[in-house]
Amino acid sequence: MSTQAQLETLKHKLREVSDLSSVGAVLGWDQATYMPDGGGDLRGRQLALIGRLTHERASSRELGDLLKSLREAAQGKALSEADAALVRVAYRDYERMARLPSSFVQEVSEHTSKTYMAWTKARPANDWATMRPLLEKTLELSKRSAAYYPEFSHPMDALMDEGEPGCSLTYIKPLFAKLREETVKLLREVQARPAADVSCLRGKFPIAQQVAFGERVIRAYGYDFNRGRQDTTHHPFCTRFGHGDVRITTRYRDDDVGDGLFSTLHEAGHAMYEQGVDEAFDAGPLASGVSTGVHESQSRLWENIVGRSRGFWSHYYPELQREFPSFQDVPMETFYRAINRVEPSLIRVDADELTYNLHVFVRFELETELHEGKLAIRDLPEAWRAKYRDYLGVASNDDRDGCLQDVHWYGGLIGGYFQGYTLGNILAAQFFESAVKAHPAIPTEIARGEFATLRGWLRENLHKYGRQYDPPELIRRATGQELSVEPYLRYLRGKFLEPVSKG
Amino acid sequence: MSTQAQLETLKHKLREVSDLSSVGAVLGWDQATYMPDGGGDLRGRQLALIGRLTHERASSRELGDLLKSLREAAQGKALSEADAALVRVAYRDYERMARLPSSFVQEVSEHTSKTYMAWTKARPANDWATMRPLLEKTLELSKRSAAYYPEFSHPMDALMDEGEPGCSLTYIKPLFAKLREETVKLLREVQARPAADVSCLRGKFPIAQQVAFGERVIRAYGYDFNRGRQDTTHHPFCTRFGHGDVRITTRYRDDDVGDGLFSTLHEAGHAMYEQGVDEAFDAGPLASGVSTGVHESQSRLWENIVGRSRGFWSHYYPELQREFPSFQDVPMETFYRAINRVEPSLIRVDADELTYNLHVFVRFELETELHEGKLAIRDLPEAWRAKYRDYLGVASNDDRDGCLQDVHWYGGLIGGYFQGYTLGNILAAQFFESAVKAHPAIPTEIARGEFATLRGWLRENLHKYGRQYDPPELIRRATGQELSVEPYLRYLRGKFLEPVSKG
Repeated sequence: MSTQAQLETLKHKLREVSDLSSVGAVLGWDQATYMPDGGGDLRGRQLALIGRLTHERASSRELGDLLKSLREAAQGKALSEADAALVRVAYRDYERMARLPSSFVQEVSEHTSKTYMAWTKARPANDWATMRPLLEKTLELSKRSAAYYPEFSHPMDALMDEGEPGCSLTYIKPLFAKLREETVKLLREVQARPAADVSCLRGKFPIAQQVAFGERVIRAYGYDFNRGRQDTTHHPFCTRFGHGDVRITTRYRDDDVGDGLFSTLHEAGHAMYEQGVDEAFDAGPLASGVSTGVHESQSRLWENIVGRSRGFWSHYYPELQREFPSFQDVPMETFYRAINRVEPSLIRVDADELTYNLHVFVRFELETELHEGKLAIRDLPEAWRAKYRDYLGVASNDDRDGCLQDVHWYGGLIGGYFQGYTLGNILAAQFFESAVKAHPAIPTEIARGEFATLRGWLRENLHKYGRQYDPPELIRRATGQELSVEPYLRYLRGKFLEPVSKG
Repeated sequence: MSTQAQLETLKHKLREVSDLSSVGAVLGWDQATYMPDGGGDLRGRQLALIGRLTHERASSRELGDLLKSLREAAQGKALSEADAALVRVAYRDYERMARLPSSFVQEVSEHTSKTYMAWTKARPANDWATMRPLLEKTLELSKRSAAYYPEFSHPMDALMDEGEPGCSLTYIKPLFAKLREETVKLLREVQARPAADVSCLRGKFPIAQQVAFGERVIRAYGYDFNRGRQDTTHHPFCTRFGHGDVRITTRYRDDDVGDGLFSTLHEAGHAMYEQGVDEAFDAGPLASGVSTGVHESQSRLWENIVGRSRGFWSHYYPELQREFPSFQDVPMETFYRAINRVEPSLIRVDADELTYNLHVFVRFELETELHEGKLAIRDLPEAWRAKYRDYLGVASNDDRDGCLQDVHWYGGLIGGYFQGYTLGNILAAQFFESAVKAHPAIPTEIARGEFATLRGWLRENLHKYGRQYDPPELIRRATGQELSVEPYLRYLRGKFLEPVSKG
């Protein structure tokens, strides 16, 4: 077969894998949005079946042989840059898949599904005793999963590799240590100032109006409703079926106007990334965001750097006041300070912009200790409390708001995900700084409710590439630098240490 | 392998076919309800892929061999009644599937998909010229499809066999001829009376209230929202994913209160049938309604015999008046006569209860003539008009409201479906008469808004059996008789020829 014919065959096979996998995504979306209670058992079987059929195809020997042959062609420079990237990324996905025996995949799937179901009941009941043995098994499976990739020197590296290619513990530890130190210092300074009054955010805010307001904003951001939609769920998420169908979900509370709005802006940031990937990559392995960190950078950029900025609200606050009369007597500055209040708390998803990373460090460090055998699952609740006391100065008496609070360990493996949140915060600031450097008018445009220049820069420099470049190269190309925590620290200091009298 | 082991293997294989096929149903539901425009191309590929995987499994040699071996066991009385039925029905499905070459299935799928897309534009544009060559191809494919089943003496029999097992042209022609004759007679008598005033049905009816009212009624009927839900679409339908998830869709118009309501009652009738199938049959070939005719009997029973009855409205009309103030000055009898007005018209889906079957006869007879070579596609528009003039005394000048009006021929094959509507009307009356004979209190219960006895009789005598018995046997078991048009004629005469002064 000629190289060209092999490429065609490869793309055909990869499209089938992608289409099957996107069928699973549709099933998952429906499960989280509209499926009636009675549909759960069948949905579990459907998801398992589609998962198995996808895994069979994604790890088939024919696919592997084709990829090996095309890798040689790529080494001989016989492929275009995009095709070479396709082969490289597809081979990495294949390798990850093919290393895992079907029986192990099945075991993980059954265990995590059982654990997740137990967790949905155990968390509200503050029932750590039930979760402990399940989590012990999860840790064992996580270790075994990492062991299938012996080329990594640390199990956390093996687990991070899928979602965060090019990342390692050696790289991340000093980065996080520095950010932690700076954050704690900054937090002390912020806490010395008078606390913001958040009472204007509480009240009665009809949900239909919240939805309408949020949708107006993300439409202006550039989220394309012809290729997407928004629905409500318990746990907001963004899901990509394909270039033409990238959906988001949000949850609204009628007594808190911030919750739904900022979650909408956040998910729209993820979705615009997926909508912005080059259409030519569609239905193949390059057609998605490149890493959890870069993905989170897009959601945090639109949620926080844009959506919690004074410029943004100088445009949107009058509109918010028209929509919700209770704001009519609230000065914009009071509102601005309310949505940016800093206050150490117990729950990651409710955390403010500054303390958020401290929540991440707790989890990331505990994961690492668990994998290194320095911490046992039975000691997790106490270790959690100790770190919260140490980093945030607060600690819950129960586990519901402690180590039971996040779904991640109870719906998947331990390790490989949490670092992405902080990498995202760091990168959001770095990308925004580069965009503004290239287009200094961006802040004034935002203050007019115009986002096309910013969105265009992100699309041209990040979104369109999908997974074509690994994160380190993508960051270099977009910003001319390695990942750096400095823009983020500049951003945090500028925002949270501005003169109190301002406004 | 022991018979028991073979049965287990069979059920396992059939469950996989059923689960895959239900994945296709989820994709179809989303396509018709929430999918954004941009999702169309991917959805087409996903549906084709799931369709191919389903067909491969449903027509596999292993499945065929297993079924042949188990048929022998069944003949030797080694199987329970339900298992024997399972093997019989599964074998028939397998035979139908395996006769069709994959290439033919693919050809039909591609052609009907293309034709359907063209029709969605051609109908509003009244563009018969575009559809004619496509429909000629559809007729050719329909003939070829029938020819794969040479054991049938008429192509219409072959095409009806899947949806209407046990039915034939020889059986249906005299039945329909008699009903047509009686309907035309009845229609003349009804038309001699003063026409009802339908103006009370037009006005402004907020859709949210229509949805709420309709859902209250179908909840009272017994549609189980824990195992279903209702959404809005352009073309109402009912879809079964499994025992725990049977959904309906409706469309509402804010200027017509009847359209959405009766379509809700209709689809709920279909859905209660699917929800009532024995749970033990779930995820296998017995787990669905047995035929288009029996299915339609359930939708028409709840829509018309119950939902357009004076008893039903004696309970619900005060509630309707509270919900929609424009009815406050409208006597119930005026409303009752409005929702039961008889008037020959051009459009099947808007037809009243009496003239509805005349629309069906037009289509069924034209289909038969097309298959017999007595009519050519090019002459279809004129032949359509001629039959409308003949049976209904009306004819449209355009094709939009003529032979382009129904999706069936443009989204599938020609033949095999339309007869089900009339069989459904006939059976609805026959089943209702039997239910009332067994439980004479049913009409007074309906007038109290209580439906449990009626629903229970239908569930016990029809629903729970799924496809265990073929329609003729099911009808005999439920009513003690063969299918008969007499109860339906009694019902029509009783309803439409009642003394005018009544009420």
